[in-house]
Parts: sequence; structure tokens; C-alpha cells
Amino acid sequence: MFEFKVEAESGPARAGTLSLPHGTVETPVFMPVGTQGTVRALSPADLRAAGATLVLANTYHLHVRPGEQVVEKLGALHRFMSWDRPLLTDSGGFQVFSLEGFRRVDDDGVEFQSHLDGGRRTLTPERATEIQWVLGADIAMAFDHVVPGGADQPTARDAMERTLRWLQRCRKRHEELRASHDNQSLWPILQGGTHLELRTEGLRRILELGTWTGLAIGGLSVGEPKAVMYDMLERLEPKLPAIPRYLMGVGFPEDLVAAVERGVDLFDCVAPTRNGRNGSAFTPDGPVNIRNAEHREDPQPLDATCDCETCTTFSRGYLRHLFMAGELLGLKLLSLHNVRYLIRLAGEMRAAIRRSAFGPWAAEWRRRYLHSGSA
Amino acid sequence: MFEFKVEAESGPARAGTLSLPHGTVETPVFMPVGTQGTVRALSPADLRAAGATLVLANTYHLHVRPGEQVVEKLGALHRFMSWDRPLLTDSGGFQVFSLEGFRRVDDDGVEFQSHLDGGRRTLTPERATEIQWVLGADIAMAFDHVVPGGADQPTARDAMERTLRWLQRCRKRHEELRASHDNQSLWPILQGGTHLELRTEGLRRILELGTWTGLAIGGLSVGEPKAVMYDMLERLEPKLPAIPRYLMGVGFPEDLVAAVERGVDLFDCVAPTRNGRNGSAFTPDGPVNIRNAEHREDPQPLDATCDCETCTTFSRGYLRHLFMAGELLGLKLLSLHNVRYLIRLAGEMRAAIRRSAFGPWAAEWRRRYLHSGSA
Repeated sequence: MFEFKVEAESGPARAGTLSLPHGTVETPVFMPVGTQGTVRALSPADLRAAGATLVLANTYHLHVRPGEQVVEKLGALHRFMSWDRPLLTDSGGFQVFSLEGFRRVDDDGVEFQSHLDGGRRTLTPERATEIQWVLGADIAMAFDHVVPGGADQPTARDAMERTLRWLQRCRKRHEELRASHDNQSLWPILQGGTHLELRTEGLRRILELGTWTGLAIGGLSVGEPKAVMYDMLERLEPKLPAIPRYLMGVGFPEDLVAAVERGVDLFDCVAPTRNGRNGSAFTPDGPVNIRNAEHREDPQPLDATCDCETCTTFSRGYLRHLFMAGELLGLKLLSLHNVRYLIRLAGEMRAAIRRSAFGPWAAEWRRRYLHSGSA
Repeated sequence: MFEFKVEAESGPARAGTLSLPHGTVETPVFMPVGTQGTVRALSPADLRAAGATLVLANTYHLHVRPGEQVVEKLGALHRFMSWDRPLLTDSGGFQVFSLEGFRRVDDDGVEFQSHLDGGRRTLTPERATEIQWVLGADIAMAFDHVVPGGADQPTARDAMERTLRWLQRCRKRHEELRASHDNQSLWPILQGGTHLELRTEGLRRILELGTWTGLAIGGLSVGEPKAVMYDMLERLEPKLPAIPRYLMGVGFPEDLVAAVERGVDLFDCVAPTRNGRNGSAFTPDGPVNIRNAEHREDPQPLDATCDCETCTTFSRGYLRHLFMAGELLGLKLLSLHNVRYLIRLAGEMRAAIRRSAFGPWAAEWRRRYLHSGSA
């Protein structure tokens, strides 16, 4: 359990297999996001049909509603949401630092306002670890202090230092909890904003704290220019150990390709479902807005290369009708396609890596997706 | 095609088989309503899984959006909505008489305001017939003049006389259109409000106009007391020919049982999906509101007797969470269960009729559903 094998490499891009208590995950992998214990508009059967192997759920959201005690009473997170494949929970750090409203940080933890009832609550490294233990995902994340993408060096250092101190407390609590059975692994989150020297130092200090079965890179894709994120990944890559690397909150198809090219293995993002609900679909030729009038009488599928229920069953004209008519089925069908698109994209990258041809594959993919070979 | 065989009777209750161009329908049958060419929140795969054989779509809604020409360009209604089993379209009569806004009726037809853009449109018996021919459902309905449940005798007579005159024009246009191929059957709608003598006369005059492959009873379940509807059905039943009898817009589980008991074969209603989206579920022990606090930590299925995805996969506690959290999946799961519930209910009635035991079955069903044997 918690074993990761790199099976093929093509430059920094890697194809691997991650063994977890609830199953095996082939990487690169895209994780659909089940914020409230459900991937919006999709059922577990839909997710299986889309080929999802690893799903993310948000500790913050489940903590405030229905509460981890309710999830525990209903058999812990896997059974609660009827997902028998691997799960990952984030720590709540990102949410308490990004949601609006009152927030007070000290070294003990964060006092914040629930977005539901405005009530004051506190998360500490220990509490975040305990809640995730109760939820029972295969992978839990360490509680971290996230700063905005443009944070200056002293602010970013302060948050990084706190995140490192909290990591030790998370690890201690996690070790205590898992003394009896080894069902969950804790992954650290590397912070440091857009400051390479902080990221490099943070990475060194995380690795000095012990061995880990995986490592997340947080605090990117939070408002900084994409070139900055790509550059950061490129410079960090040679220093990263062989364990799985999870780039949090990323992303769009072009981001997945660029990040895999720079050695990243795992991704999560709400983009496929959020964009899907807005009528925006990923296709090999770039995004399509299904509401556009050009699709009104179009009998073709959304994406002729796709094997999902949406693309094998319905015309663009019908999908447009569903959106123009405000029908719920449209929200599901585009969400399903977009999730399937990213999972297939990860699969295509894996195949290209295995035939040692990631570079040419990526160039051809970009030529078609971006209508240019340069982005 | 368009053949109906009564296979078993148990009092006035009948079990039959209706052969249509797109397949066979076993009666009694409940038709889910796909108002805008989609049964709200459910995919064709969901409907097949729920056991739906016959689905209704609304001519008025498809006429105003996307327009029957668009549906035609996309391969007509079956292909448009990806439903390869039988379809029935209503005539638009009910909608133009029940939607708010301007309306002017004369003998030619009805001028009304589109609920979408307020634009003036006209439906005549010929137009309603032509639109339904273009949509291409297995069964089309005659264009009718619907009056409110409490309409007085002169008002109800006026509407019934007009409906009879329109029926002849619908039939003439329909015969012209189907001269080349016999893919659609036109059913008349019996009106007459709550006035038995009007209903009796209307029925006689419909049958004098020719032979029909089915007959609809409209203008009930529109505000009058339920006892009035049941009484009307009971008095009409001995006068009805052996063709399929379709009670439009009905209904709730107790209405289906009462109407089958009085010789009705087909039903449609938005209740299972509308109530489902409101968190209300049909169960053998009566309706359940899944939002109620009692379900918070309940690990049991919504309906332990049900074989649908919702009941075989999720706990009441999880379903409640989905509704409290405003998650789209909840809307689908309760809609799916409610549709499956009514389809199973129709199947149970069919089985009871075939073993000549409808009476005892209905008494037992009511005892459990209504917690009393009298309703």
C-alpha cells in the first residue's frame, strides 16, 4: 500500500502506478473534485463510466456540512458517497484562507467563519488531521497556510514557515491515529508563493522531516501568470524525489500537458464540472461554448473522438437546446464529458510517455488544441 | 401497429399490450413527462433503467423552443432526444389554455402569447397536427379546448363542442399527412368538465366520428375534488370501448390505483420529477420528505423494496445531505426513484390484474400507503 512505481519516463514526464488501500491509480491522473462529497451533477456510476480512479473531497465543506460525525455514522466517506475507489481529502487549509469573511491566524491554527452560518470555528493541524482520519480517505493532506499568488517574500516566508511547523504537528497526530491500522497516508504541501528560493528551501526541509509517500505543490494557479507556474515547476523538478507529485487545483487541459511535461503526476480541478455547467466543453480543437447559435441545428457530437455517454448519444443541437431551455440534463452531460475529456487526456499522456514520445505528442496536441505550436 | 390487446381483467381493471411503431407498451403504464424533449434531470439511460417504455413530450414547448423545424433537422423527436422507445406528444391545447398571458379563442384556433418572448402565436387544429407530425411521436393528440375544473355547464359545453369540431379538422389533416406511411396515430380527447351528461354525449359523438386506436380523458385533475374525478371515471367506464384509455395529467400513486380500478390504462404526470426535485419521494409507506432532520444519520435506503440506482446505492442520510447542500445529484436521484416507483406501481397493478386479484391488492396497497383502508 502507498507504493508508487515509475514505469516509464519521457524527459521529466513520467508514467507510474500508485497503489492505495482502495485500488490502483495509473498516473498521470486527473482527480474530479467532489467538494461536498459529490462531484457536482455526476453520480458514482457516471464517474466510473468516465474512468475516474481517484476522487477528491473537501474536508472544510464536509466538516461544516453535514459534519464529519455524520459522515462517520454513515460509514465514513467511501460508503457515505458510494465511491469504492481511492479518495483524497484536502486539509481545509486552502478553503479557510480563500473563503470570504473573518479569519484569525496564529501559530496554533486558524479561527474562521463558516460560510454557511457565519459561526466561528477553529481548525488546527491536529483537528484537520483528525477530521480527515474520520473521513477515511486513502490520502490526507497536511494543514497548510496559503497566501495569494502575488504575496511578497516576507509574507510568503511567514506562511511557509508556519506550514512547516504545522506539518510536524499533522505528522505527529497522524502517526498516533494510524498506529492501529495503516489505511491512510499523509502528504505534505509545499508552499512558498512565487519565490523560488522559498520553494527550494521548503522542499529541502519537508524532505528532512522524514519520508513521504507523496508530495503536493500548493499555492500555485492562484492568480500568478501561468508562465511563472510553469517556470517554478521546471526549476523544482530536478530536486523532487521519485514520489508522486500532486499539483493542487490544476487545471485546464493546457495546464495538465505543461505540468506533466515538467514532471507532475496528479491533478485536481473544478474546471471540468464548473465550465460544463456554464456550457463550456473541452474538445481536441479547443473549448466549445455549446450555447453558440452555430450549434443550433448541428447533428454532430460535441467531440467526435470521445467515447462518453454525451458524445455517443446526443447531437450538439440537442445539447444546445438543453442549455437554452435551462434543463438539468445539460449540466450533467457537459460535466460528464469534461471529466471524461481530462481523464482521457491523462491517459493519452501516459501512453505517449510509455512510447517515449511525450514531446512530439505534446507538440501535436498543442497544434490542434491551441491552433498554434507555441503556447 | 397501433394494436391493443386486453390480456386480463379484474373488475374494470385491465392489463393489456399496446403495439406501437417504436415498441410494445404493457399497460397499465405510467409515462414520464419530457416537457422540453427531456425528462427533467434524467437521461434516456436513466429512463431505460427505470423501465420507462412510453414517454410524453409537449408540443407547445417544443414548438416555441427550439421549434419543430430544428427538431426535424436533428432527425425528429426520437433521434433529437435519443429515445428509441415509443413517444406520445400532447397537442398543445392544455398549455395554451393553462399558461398565463394573452389568449384569444375562436373557432379557427387559439392566438396566444409565447411564455418565452411574449410574441403572439396561433395554434389551430391543423397546425397542432402538422407540428406533431413533424415531431414524429408514435401517438399524437387532437387539439382541444380545456376549461378549468370548476367551469359551469354552458362554458364546458362550448369548449366541448369546439373540441369536437376541432377533432374533425385534426383527423382530416392527420389522414392527409399519413397517407404515405402509417407511423403515427391520432387520439381524441374527451372534454366536458365535471358534467357527466356532457362527457357522455362527448364520448358518444367522438365514437360516432370513426374508430380510434386510443382515447384520452382530458380536463380532469385540474382543480376539481378527487372524488368528482373518481366518480366521473366510474360512470364513464361502462360506456368506453376496449381501446386504450389515457387519463391525462394523472398522477399521484393513489390516483393511479383509483383510476386503474376504474378501467384506465395510461397516465402521465410531472409529479414524480417535480416532487423529486423538491425532496419528496414516493415510498410504499407514503411520501417521505428527505429534508426532514430524522433522516440525518439514517443509513437505510429511501425505499427498501425498490431496485433503482438511488435505493440500491445511497443512504437516506446521504440523500438528505445532497438536498441540504443544494447538490444537483439529489435532484436526479429522487426524480429517478419517483419515476421508477410509479413504473413499478403500474407493474404491480398489472400483475395483480393478471392473477385476478386487483381488489385485494389495492386494499392492501392502500392500507400501507395511506395508513388506512378507506381512501
